[in-house]
Amino acid sequence: MLFTDFGTADIYVGQVKSVLHRLAPHASVIDLAHDLQAFNIRAAAHLLDALKDSFQEGSVFLCVIDPGVGGTRRPIVMHAAGRHFVGPDNGLLSVVAARAAEKRFWSIVWRPVGLSDSFHGRDLFAPIAAQIAAGTLTPGQLQTLAALANDFGADDLEQIIYIDHYGNACTGIRADHANAEKILHAKGRRIDRARVFGDVSRGSMLWYVNSHGLVEIAMNCGNAAGALGLQIGDPVSWAG
Amino acid sequence: MLFTDFGTADIYVGQVKSVLHRLAPHASVIDLAHDLQAFNIRAAAHLLDALKDSFQEGSVFLCVIDPGVGGTRRPIVMHAAGRHFVGPDNGLLSVVAARAAEKRFWSIVWRPVGLSDSFHGRDLFAPIAAQIAAGTLTPGQLQTLAALANDFGADDLEQIIYIDHYGNACTGIRADHANAEKILHAKGRRIDRARVFGDVSRGSMLWYVNSHGLVEIAMNCGNAAGALGLQIGDPVSWAG
Amino acid sequence: MLFTDFGTADIYVGQVKSVLHRLAPHASVIDLAHDLQAFNIRAAAHLLDALKDSFQEGSVFLCVIDPGVGGTRRPIVMHAAGRHFVGPDNGLLSVVAARAAEKRFWSIVWRPVGLSDSFHGRDLFAPIAAQIAAGTLTPGQLQTLAALANDFGADDLEQIIYIDHYGNACTGIRADHANAEKILHAKGRRIDRARVFGDVSRGSMLWYVNSHGLVEIAMNCGNAAGALGLQIGDPVSWAG
Repeated sequence: MLFTDFGTADIYVGQVKSVLHRLAPHASVIDLAHDLQAFNIRAAAHLLDALKDSFQEGSVFLCVIDPGVGGTRRPIVMHAAGRHFVGPDNGLLSVVAARAAEKRFWSIVWRPVGLSDSFHGRDLFAPIAAQIAAGTLTPGQLQTLAALANDFGADDLEQIIYIDHYGNACTGIRADHANAEKILHAKGRRIDRARVFGDVSRGSMLWYVNSHGLVEIAMNCGNAAGALGLQIGDPVSWAG
Repeated sequence: MLFTDFGTADIYVGQVKSVLHRLAPHASVIDLAHDLQAFNIRAAAHLLDALKDSFQEGSVFLCVIDPGVGGTRRPIVMHAAGRHFVGPDNGLLSVVAARAAEKRFWSIVWRPVGLSDSFHGRDLFAPIAAQIAAGTLTPGQLQTLAALANDFGADDLEQIIYIDHYGNACTGIRADHANAEKILHAKGRRIDRARVFGDVSRGSMLWYVNSHGLVEIAMNCGNAAGALGLQIGDPVSWAG
Repeated sequence: MLFTDFGTADIYVGQVKSVLHRLAPHASVIDLAHDLQAFNIRAAAHLLDALKDSFQEGSVFLCVIDPGVGGTRRPIVMHAAGRHFVGPDNGLLSVVAARAAEKRFWSIVWRPVGLSDSFHGRDLFAPIAAQIAAGTLTPGQLQTLAALANDFGADDLEQIIYIDHYGNACTGIRADHANAEKILHAKGRRIDRARVFGDVSRGSMLWYVNSHGLVEIAMNCGNAAGALGLQIGDPVSWAG
């Protein structure tokens, strides 16, 4: 599973897949998201936690939103929620970790020949992810780690964490912390809950529990984020 | 074959592929289109009919443009033109059906545990498509259906049905209903036929029969849709 | 490896993959780039040379930026740098050729039944690429060629050849022709070198050697191309 900010339309994903194919030719590679906001690691960390359950236990998630590439941030492997995660230790994996009953962390101490300064997704993270998938990782490549360096914690995030191309705006609030009677505030607007789009009139706004179990703002036959001017990182709150 | 309005860059296609991979691990999954207009089912229905022939007989098409998800529209399976189609009974499959010599329809009566209200592409249609591909569908999951609930018919659609990133604007008019001598009208402009772009001068407009057998408006070294302000659903007509 | 201007979000790539899957069912198909500038073949030719090394020897590159489709340009196969390339003889493959120690060229003389005038990517180039990958090409399909008809040569290109979604602007200047002490000029601006983004202050511009070995202009936590108004084809030069 690839979860990155590399851009669907850019030249980076293909190079990562070339590495995965070389080192894990029998693994299935599925693109989960490639257009995440480069500078909002916290939002992506919450989205990753919500999406991970759509993929089988044992899956390897290659997670690269990494503005600090080439600096001092640590490359890590995490095992949590029955799945493997490979990425930078900048908080991206921390929401999954904080909510998982059992988790283990390792620092990636292996370095490839010819490691680039700017593309660890291809040169460092992809080879490790491929070797985990293929079962060919050797003990010396990793070193046990006690804890993450950056941790956003387990709490919900009362912000917009993802906006899709329909204009639906997903928050970091989990369904079991929502209440159908509650009114959601966003950009000074009061939004009522509905079960599905079709339950409100054309052009009306609603919040609903989306298919990843998160509270989401939408407009029937319209673009909610566009209408409200919502962006990733904008705050939302409950009224009453 | 995936034919949806899920958005190439969004998080939905990956989740659908995860389901397909789990239930039909040996099937090849090919993305045909994911950025179709959510609210123009009729245009997409004509495009689907033109594109289906590029894929082998026996292929399974997972077709989801489904603004009525969570409402009362019926989920269906269709066998027509030697291929399988899975999607909502909202007209999307009806142009293929109307033009096919033989066709059969089934209602999907199976419902998964944990069916979401908003993402039947992942929860309902993908499992059925995967099981058809893998040959693991069981009789009780489907129920024979006499006819489609929504039917756009077999006639050509004298409208723009698709605009690509070059700005070429494809109509729903099939080549055998065109005539090289005819002039096409769009947005008040008269457009002559040419065989290929290079047969007209740089910046000139032309219509030609595209590689899917449909009449298409283009500009040599330019963006025809941008120049004419064409959008999906805009009418075109023949002069004389 | 697919290297085209077909558009990630459009309906063309899926049709090409359908052909590849039919004729080379065991080959892995990786998308390298699909949103290249249709009318800048020279920039794409330099980018292709830089990216080819990310893929294993023996790989088959299907390269289609082909504004002259349906005209007189020749369809060719090239073997160079241990890899196979299939595409039009319009210069797109010529930078790889000019820099390779050994290279061989063939004209594709085979023509399929039902060849369209506008989509040789699907009808002509994809079947040849698939047959090379599957080892099923027959001698009569190709004819030895002495040289390319269009040749951009081996020299670096002192222009912007690619801009990614972060706004990083890649030039056609190879690292070994750069010098860390040199200042790069672009749009009247003087830009100093840094090793990685994090070595300059937030919002500052830098040039660095990117992961494909080319000189690239970037801005720490910002969009360099947007800030400078850079586009593909814009000239850059060294100061002093």
